[in-house]
Amino acid sequence: MTPRGAGRARGRAAGEAQAVILAGGRGTRFWPLGRRSRPKQFLPIAGPDTMVEETVRRLGAVIPVKRVWTVADAAQTRALRRLLPRVPRNQFVIEPLARNTAPSLILATARIYLENPAAPVAVFPADHLIRKPARFRGKLAAALEIAQRDAAIVTFGITPSYPATGFGYIRFSEDSPRRLGRELFHRVRAFKEKPGEGLAAEFLAAGDSFWNSGMFVWRADVFAGTLKACAPDLFVFWERILEALKKGRPAALRRVFEEMPSISIDHALMERASGILVNEGDFGWSDVGAWSALLDIWKRDPAGNALKGETVGLDAAGCLVYNPGRLTALVGVRDLIVVETGDALLICAAGQDQRVREVVDILSKRGRKKYL
Amino acid sequence: MTPRGAGRARGRAAGEAQAVILAGGRGTRFWPLGRRSRPKQFLPIAGPDTMVEETVRRLGAVIPVKRVWTVADAAQTRALRRLLPRVPRNQFVIEPLARNTAPSLILATARIYLENPAAPVAVFPADHLIRKPARFRGKLAAALEIAQRDAAIVTFGITPSYPATGFGYIRFSEDSPRRLGRELFHRVRAFKEKPGEGLAAEFLAAGDSFWNSGMFVWRADVFAGTLKACAPDLFVFWERILEALKKGRPAALRRVFEEMPSISIDHALMERASGILVNEGDFGWSDVGAWSALLDIWKRDPAGNALKGETVGLDAAGCLVYNPGRLTALVGVRDLIVVETGDALLICAAGQDQRVREVVDILSKRGRKKYL
Repeated sequence: MTPRGAGRARGRAAGEAQAVILAGGRGTRFWPLGRRSRPKQFLPIAGPDTMVEETVRRLGAVIPVKRVWTVADAAQTRALRRLLPRVPRNQFVIEPLARNTAPSLILATARIYLENPAAPVAVFPADHLIRKPARFRGKLAAALEIAQRDAAIVTFGITPSYPATGFGYIRFSEDSPRRLGRELFHRVRAFKEKPGEGLAAEFLAAGDSFWNSGMFVWRADVFAGTLKACAPDLFVFWERILEALKKGRPAALRRVFEEMPSISIDHALMERASGILVNEGDFGWSDVGAWSALLDIWKRDPAGNALKGETVGLDAAGCLVYNPGRLTALVGVRDLIVVETGDALLICAAGQDQRVREVVDILSKRGRKKYL
Repeated sequence: MTPRGAGRARGRAAGEAQAVILAGGRGTRFWPLGRRSRPKQFLPIAGPDTMVEETVRRLGAVIPVKRVWTVADAAQTRALRRLLPRVPRNQFVIEPLARNTAPSLILATARIYLENPAAPVAVFPADHLIRKPARFRGKLAAALEIAQRDAAIVTFGITPSYPATGFGYIRFSEDSPRRLGRELFHRVRAFKEKPGEGLAAEFLAAGDSFWNSGMFVWRADVFAGTLKACAPDLFVFWERILEALKKGRPAALRRVFEEMPSISIDHALMERASGILVNEGDFGWSDVGAWSALLDIWKRDPAGNALKGETVGLDAAGCLVYNPGRLTALVGVRDLIVVETGDALLICAAGQDQRVREVVDILSKRGRKKYL
């Protein structure tokens, strides 16, 4: 099959593909811009629009907006409806309770399954950046076709650039990958939880490991079958959710959620399943993990400062400033993160931005709810 | 004369003493809190009230508020009237034009001279801090008595703590000082302009030098006589100002100001006059020259941070924060000056706060008037 022929085939195969945007994430790493009620996916930090809007937009024609689903709690869903007015109203899936990603994805996939059991489903976190969206769309179309044709769960893995301990890893076999056009799909040997430093260095050195991007592609029926085969404890909930959805019983759905464990899709399914395929996600991915990640994403001035808002800099270098609509003057400072939001100001050494969580914890202990 | 007797005598001698507050200063060293329309004397930075209010309050019973005069331009005088409602309305002296301190003090002293030629006049910058106001009042009363009794110009000198190049110096004779109670009044040998580093070090080593505090005490008639004897070029203006005031001619007064040179009282009179006396101003004086000066004035936390506004500090030390009514979080930062005023934010290495003027210059060149 020529690449051109492959492109046409992928286009047809992805015809009925559905996207599920995991938009229920919480987090305080972007405090003070991010608050409890406005986590990262609702912030316009990686581009002019919020990250969830960018996540939907980059799907382009591969999965048009009328086939996008979101999953989040009721409050977040209200915000999502405002941001994504072109998503059909019945495709904003509301979690009865905040659980982890496995319950969210069982629910969202069940909703799609009831409409079309063979529908290919692509799952995306709402708060990641992809700098090469055209390349991403090409790979997504290929993954959808492989997932549909071969009844496989497919994921994207990110080639590690350093021995990160903050990501899960996917170890894969370099032998006889499946091929579609130019794309290689490797057999996954194992999903690995976030490793310690030593193990992370080993994974990096071995050269057969990707970071787990949290993006997955599956046919709804294949998801159900894999759950039944590999996670029968959870398949019970899948069946009860299908039943509650068919009968239109929100109270029953809520009871199922109350009983389900809070567990990630990685633990629940990926670590247990076999036959998963992984394609290299070399499309400029970033999880935008903390403020300092934006130093690599925002445009920098010649002194290496990344600036949102009017700025005067004298002997200032390596600083990230978010203070739109106001003036910031930097004099003789290096490698600072500065975020001003009208009521709160963060000034943080760039290498210590993981400690922003501690600030939020302290404010929480002080009972300063207006800053949370 | 016993100290007690001296105290009573000083109380009587200072009976009609008048204070002149030089409140027309401009400056941008406290940007962004300080703006063109709100220089240092109008800022509540050294205490709960503005520096000009503190300047008047610390005079206490030695020069009560009904004998306080201010000198400033028309716009600043409007602000002064709001801040100092108990100062008699006719004692807000308006400079027709912004000149330096010599024209201001010729005008203010002339106003007082017309009411009482023998009145002792004490001159104070509006933007200095005095941490020991009771001690200051005792010394002021003594200086007023000496100035009145001996027909001398008296000044306060500050014992240098380092070879500052930002202050003028007063070199004095250690031989046979005049004495009043416990106070010594040394004969001034010379007023010296701001020196270079080498000369400043020499002055410090010699031990016979004070910093020029800019505070002076004189009888109005002695001021006029000294001007006539030592600065006849300026005495001409003194006479023309007296004439314009007597005839109530603001236009004539303005013309005199237009012709007067822009010259400081130090250059105009102190450097030329003889017989000036200096008393040690060891009353906790500071000119509060820039933001970092407040690190020595504001209360510090155990990590050496001086904070106005609610703060969360993680591994933060030596920082000065002015952000009242809002929250500031500092993570892993050292020796920073942080000033947030709603529309503008300054973040400056503590050792580089003199460069705040450059920020203002850049904003001026950019035409960003709203920040000036």
